[in-house]
Amino acid sequence: MSNSTNDRKIEHIRVIEEDPDTDRQGDHFASWHLMHRALPEIDYAEVDPGVSFLGKRLSFPLLISSMTGGDHELVLRVNRNLAQAAEATGVAMGVGSQRVMFTHPESCNSFALRQWAPTTVLLGNLGAVQLNYGFGLEEAQSAINIMQADGLFLHLNPLQEAVQPEGDRNFKGLAAKIAALQAELTTPLILKEVGCGMTPADIELGLAAGIRYFDLAGSGGTSWSRIEHHRRGRGDLGLRMQDWGIPTPVALDWARPYQERATFIASGGLRNGLDMIKSVILGGSLCGLAAPLLKPAMESAEAVIAVIEGVKQEFTTAMFLLGVTRVEQLHLNDALLWRR
Amino acid sequence: MSNSTNDRKIEHIRVIEEDPDTDRQGDHFASWHLMHRALPEIDYAEVDPGVSFLGKRLSFPLLISSMTGGDHELVLRVNRNLAQAAEATGVAMGVGSQRVMFTHPESCNSFALRQWAPTTVLLGNLGAVQLNYGFGLEEAQSAINIMQADGLFLHLNPLQEAVQPEGDRNFKGLAAKIAALQAELTTPLILKEVGCGMTPADIELGLAAGIRYFDLAGSGGTSWSRIEHHRRGRGDLGLRMQDWGIPTPVALDWARPYQERATFIASGGLRNGLDMIKSVILGGSLCGLAAPLLKPAMESAEAVIAVIEGVKQEFTTAMFLLGVTRVEQLHLNDALLWRR
Amino acid sequence: MSNSTNDRKIEHIRVIEEDPDTDRQGDHFASWHLMHRALPEIDYAEVDPGVSFLGKRLSFPLLISSMTGGDHELVLRVNRNLAQAAEATGVAMGVGSQRVMFTHPESCNSFALRQWAPTTVLLGNLGAVQLNYGFGLEEAQSAINIMQADGLFLHLNPLQEAVQPEGDRNFKGLAAKIAALQAELTTPLILKEVGCGMTPADIELGLAAGIRYFDLAGSGGTSWSRIEHHRRGRGDLGLRMQDWGIPTPVALDWARPYQERATFIASGGLRNGLDMIKSVILGGSLCGLAAPLLKPAMESAEAVIAVIEGVKQEFTTAMFLLGVTRVEQLHLNDALLWRR
Amino acid sequence: MSNSTNDRKIEHIRVIEEDPDTDRQGDHFASWHLMHRALPEIDYAEVDPGVSFLGKRLSFPLLISSMTGGDHELVLRVNRNLAQAAEATGVAMGVGSQRVMFTHPESCNSFALRQWAPTTVLLGNLGAVQLNYGFGLEEAQSAINIMQADGLFLHLNPLQEAVQPEGDRNFKGLAAKIAALQAELTTPLILKEVGCGMTPADIELGLAAGIRYFDLAGSGGTSWSRIEHHRRGRGDLGLRMQDWGIPTPVALDWARPYQERATFIASGGLRNGLDMIKSVILGGSLCGLAAPLLKPAMESAEAVIAVIEGVKQEFTTAMFLLGVTRVEQLHLNDALLWRR
Ligand SMILES: Cc1cc2nc3c(=O)[nH]c(=O)nc-3n(C[C@H](O)[C@H](O)[C@@H](O)COP(=O)(O)O)c2cc1C
Ligand SMILES: Cc1cc2nc3c(=O)[nH]c(=O)nc-3n(C[C@H](O)[C@H](O)[C@@H](O)COP(=O)(O)O)c2cc1C
Ligand SMILES: Cc1cc2nc3c(=O)[nH]c(=O)nc-3n(C[C@H](O)[C@H](O)[C@@H](O)COP(=O)(O)O)c2cc1C
Ligand SMILES: Cc1cc2nc3c(=O)[nH]c(=O)nc-3n(C[C@H](O)[C@H](O)[C@@H](O)COP(=O)(O)O)c2cc1C
Repeated sequence: MSNSTNDRKIEHIRVIEEDPDTDRQGDHFASWHLMHRALPEIDYAEVDPGVSFLGKRLSFPLLISSMTGGDHELVLRVNRNLAQAAEATGVAMGVGSQRVMFTHPESCNSFALRQWAPTTVLLGNLGAVQLNYGFGLEEAQSAINIMQADGLFLHLNPLQEAVQPEGDRNFKGLAAKIAALQAELTTPLILKEVGCGMTPADIELGLAAGIRYFDLAGSGGTSWSRIEHHRRGRGDLGLRMQDWGIPTPVALDWARPYQERATFIASGGLRNGLDMIKSVILGGSLCGLAAPLLKPAMESAEAVIAVIEGVKQEFTTAMFLLGVTRVEQLHLNDALLWRR
Repeated sequence: MSNSTNDRKIEHIRVIEEDPDTDRQGDHFASWHLMHRALPEIDYAEVDPGVSFLGKRLSFPLLISSMTGGDHELVLRVNRNLAQAAEATGVAMGVGSQRVMFTHPESCNSFALRQWAPTTVLLGNLGAVQLNYGFGLEEAQSAINIMQADGLFLHLNPLQEAVQPEGDRNFKGLAAKIAALQAELTTPLILKEVGCGMTPADIELGLAAGIRYFDLAGSGGTSWSRIEHHRRGRGDLGLRMQDWGIPTPVALDWARPYQERATFIASGGLRNGLDMIKSVILGGSLCGLAAPLLKPAMESAEAVIAVIEGVKQEFTTAMFLLGVTRVEQLHLNDALLWRR
Repeated sequence: MSNSTNDRKIEHIRVIEEDPDTDRQGDHFASWHLMHRALPEIDYAEVDPGVSFLGKRLSFPLLISSMTGGDHELVLRVNRNLAQAAEATGVAMGVGSQRVMFTHPESCNSFALRQWAPTTVLLGNLGAVQLNYGFGLEEAQSAINIMQADGLFLHLNPLQEAVQPEGDRNFKGLAAKIAALQAELTTPLILKEVGCGMTPADIELGLAAGIRYFDLAGSGGTSWSRIEHHRRGRGDLGLRMQDWGIPTPVALDWARPYQERATFIASGGLRNGLDMIKSVILGGSLCGLAAPLLKPAMESAEAVIAVIEGVKQEFTTAMFLLGVTRVEQLHLNDALLWRR
Repeated sequence: MSNSTNDRKIEHIRVIEEDPDTDRQGDHFASWHLMHRALPEIDYAEVDPGVSFLGKRLSFPLLISSMTGGDHELVLRVNRNLAQAAEATGVAMGVGSQRVMFTHPESCNSFALRQWAPTTVLLGNLGAVQLNYGFGLEEAQSAINIMQADGLFLHLNPLQEAVQPEGDRNFKGLAAKIAALQAELTTPLILKEVGCGMTPADIELGLAAGIRYFDLAGSGGTSWSRIEHHRRGRGDLGLRMQDWGIPTPVALDWARPYQERATFIASGGLRNGLDMIKSVILGGSLCGLAAPLLKPAMESAEAVIAVIEGVKQEFTTAMFLLGVTRVEQLHLNDALLWRR
């Protein structure tokens, strides 16, 4: 099993490369429109898309979403390129699941990213369900330590586990274990889905467990059900379930009542600066992109930077056209969106 | 005529094989969405999709819908394969119309399925309109006896009869005859359509007649109008009427006010475990599939079992992701569905 | 000009033959659905689709809509075939504009249809706008007399006249002239459009003028704007305006408040018995079809009869499935229709 | 830079010629329908589509929208053809940005259009943002003088400037400068967008600045973001933003509350007389078309006249069918429109 945990990440990348439909292209943001200002009454040069997150300043509210890690040349390269780009562009970066660290100690190199990203926000990642399979404070702390992480994602992936032949599917009593873990840690935990979205009942459980950060990671983009379908080999379960979940803008909308009690990250199917700006208006404090950054990350840090700069320019241009100079003016500002 | 009743079933199967559009693929369940839980707080291993129906336990709420019967090698094989699969997987099974028994006594073999399915729910089938053409208690009791059936479907197929050149079209006074029949039988009757759905006025007539079980059998799947069109040879009536009827989820929705007084089976266009779970939430106690099981049934019991296991896995996975361990928690639980 | 009036009808037929898109196939009835009855509790044999119109009995509420007339072998044949078929099937028939009678007396033959249709409803036809161009009581009475007509259509075709290079476009003061004409005639006038529909303001003018019959003739079927485009030769006006107007079911819906004061004919885009039955439920007392009968009418009376019988069978089957035996039960019976 | 201002216009024309998708064909007017009158009770000959604008009479409410100007043979020709056609058909004409006059004095010829259009409405054009880059009363007055213009468009194009590499992006404090300029000029200023629409906040700023004329210039037609994308060479910003903005009919709808305080021009994606008539009903006093007139303008004045006559005929026919003889009867007359 330990080996499979390490190899799985490479398999995932290959599947994504070969089957473009693992990105579901739900385009769920298309039904929200932005309110143009012909007379924005601001100077583009004054538009500042910067935000603070976990006490650090980011150049704009982008998170390179959790993707990979492990003991493979490709994975090392991807993570280094992403970390260098994150530092260069001033955005946050998450890593893929660090579970592999505990079976393949050599994989630690792929997570030791502070050398490449000394100042920006770095976020660790473990599967929440592992708390039911022997993981606890020690593993969480190690995962944080190796990255000198500013926060630790605990991902919730019940669909992926259900489709994986080798899936860990006991999600019982997790909320209590998450509460216990957060109580013992000084670093904040961030609960995240991986592409099916979180719903009000989930958020309420998280809040009761002392969680203050949620990455809604909704449907419309990367489908883990479809990815695992290819690894599974038999049956249609993964295809049948490939679009299961709550589209990201819908999940944001439903999270509205909890905005005073928690900070939300929007991810899942965001593909450009316009999706990002809609996400921020709908209540996202940070916007995660994963799949669109994978291919450039396999190439070079420069390639990642180029994509990020393009997205940033879209985001900044949209701010300009909305007539706002600060991201705070976007957040939950319904007057900036309209629907037919 | 007696011969045609026996041959007709073979003709139907051939038409379905040759014209894939007899399955209308209405996909009417697509506008209902399921409420994902990122933190289901249950163990997949504890999810029990089992239900009780007519006093017996089923492994999950699947009914192999009424399809066939008669004196033909193919028909014998199909029914045996279905019965063995029903027993092996613990699901209910209905047979096609047993009217042929009374013209072709040799066809009884195709209904003597208790040998292959000793413990599960078996359901007989007669056309309700035959009550206006000489059938009565005796035929109903024979139909039940030969199968040691747990219940007897009385199918209502006015559209099919109208399109059939040889159709029996006097549907007058049927409600009273159904009431009389149910009064004399100890086995429950189940009123069913065959792909056009039942509407509130129909349910009210049925309730007044003492019926407590309804299979709504709505539109979106197998179209008998289109099937009979091919047998008819001339005119476009069958094509024109091919999409007539109430889509299954709509029929379920309209049946809501009668849930306390009756048990509903959902069928017509259900194609997988997700359609099934939506049907149960909308008020179905059992979910019928016909056309998707026909081809595997022509092959082997194993082929049928494989399809059923796949559907069951989809159903179970969906329960897991909804955070429910018992089917009772699904039934009429509106909080689990959402629409745009 | 006189010649062009006679030749125009032939040109129209040629255009319709060559350009199938003159039938706009708007399918506007598709958003209305019919309420199926699984237990109709009637005998198909008792379903009587017959209606009365202008004091005569029709076998079902079909009108062969006004199409043609003139001094041409083809036109003579078409009208004779239609008249024979109308008589044979017991439906109403209208003729095309009789204006040509007054410039080409030989064309009278094409309107002398009582010989072929001694008992059924026959309806004459003149353009209302001709009342502004010299026509009056005398012409109206002649048009009625030659047909021994039961009623006289006055068609309103402002779009067609606007697109025709030679169009008569003075529609001023028509309401008063229509009122005067109806006052002098014993035969009822029927105001009709030719494919753009009538709106409440039109109906109110007609009612005030003493008219009690309206053929709404809405959009979705034959487009006179597109037909005249082909005859026009230059400019795009006819194409641009080809879908102008009110879809027939919408026009019926809007006519609802006037149902107690007038009788409405539904036409324009009706293509089968299901469109007809929806039209009757929405308030039509008679249903007109034109284009679908043109091609068979060029062939033979038998061909027309075959089409009519098919439509009648659809209509009767729908009545059966709605559980009604009389057309009166359909009229304005909202419970028989549903929309999503 | 001065050279680029002159050449840019030619580049724009080439891009539009080569990439038909710079016209976004949003067809946003399609969801509004017009109320047909079968009995219009008017004479087509009495329909007068004429309107007054800025004290002059136009044959119908068409504006040839601002397009071009500069020191190029092609540009000279285009403007002369447009001016001659405007005069011949009695419609208003705007010119493209006159900024080039101040860097390339020879370009003045292209704006000296009174010789070709002595009597009709001519409108000058400058970018409002230039008020932040040194322009003021002097330039505005020169722009007006050379054309003997009846009004001066100040265009607002923040998206175009943001996509242009050389864009002028300081839109701060513009409202105050616009107010000052209008206070000093006797000629009215008309604030206009260039294809993204104006929203209520913009209109309120304009009203406060003393502006009484607005050209909403919404999305759905010419996309400057896409045009500039081709000139930009790198990155996807221009494509990503190509459909940004408020569709013209939506912008008109939102401008409704300001109708008593200002006069609105509708432009952006209008393509024929039906779009125009809907625009007038929705509150437009004048209707601008740009892209559809570019190609004919490169040919001849006659070609432009032919297009304008066609559009006028569509507009007039629609008035006839709505039963109105005067454009005032259209303006804000909601009873003439319907939506599904
Ligand atoms: C290649 C790849 C690997 C991923 N691996 C992880 C992971 O290990 N842990 C995790 O929490 N999410 C993982 N994700 C999911 C993303 O972090 C995120 O939740 C998802 O919503 C991003 O969506 P997008 O790809 O549609 O932008 C991965 C995504 C991709 C594309
Ligand atoms: C091949 C075939 C034969 C059928 N024969 C019968 C029958 O004899 N009696 C009956 O009540 N329904 C019959 N049905 C209809 C189904 O039992 C059921 O009502 C229908 O809704 C199943 O829909 P589906 O095929 O879309 O799953 C038949 C269906 C098929 C596909
Ligand atoms: C070939 C043809 C000729 C027609 N000629 C006339 C006519 O002379 N007078 C008239 O009132 N309507 C005429 N109509 C219009 C129809 O009578 C009717 O109003 C129209 O709504 C029928 O629509 P449909 O073709 O979509 O069924 C004609 C229609 C067709 C197809
Ligand atoms: C070739 C071309 C050049 C244009 N140049 C200008 C310009 O210089 N100034 C301006 O205000 N608008 C300019 N426009 C925009 C139009 O005036 C108008 O605002 C736009 O809404 C017309 O839309 P349409 O092309 O979709 O009809 C131009 C449009 C085109 C097609």
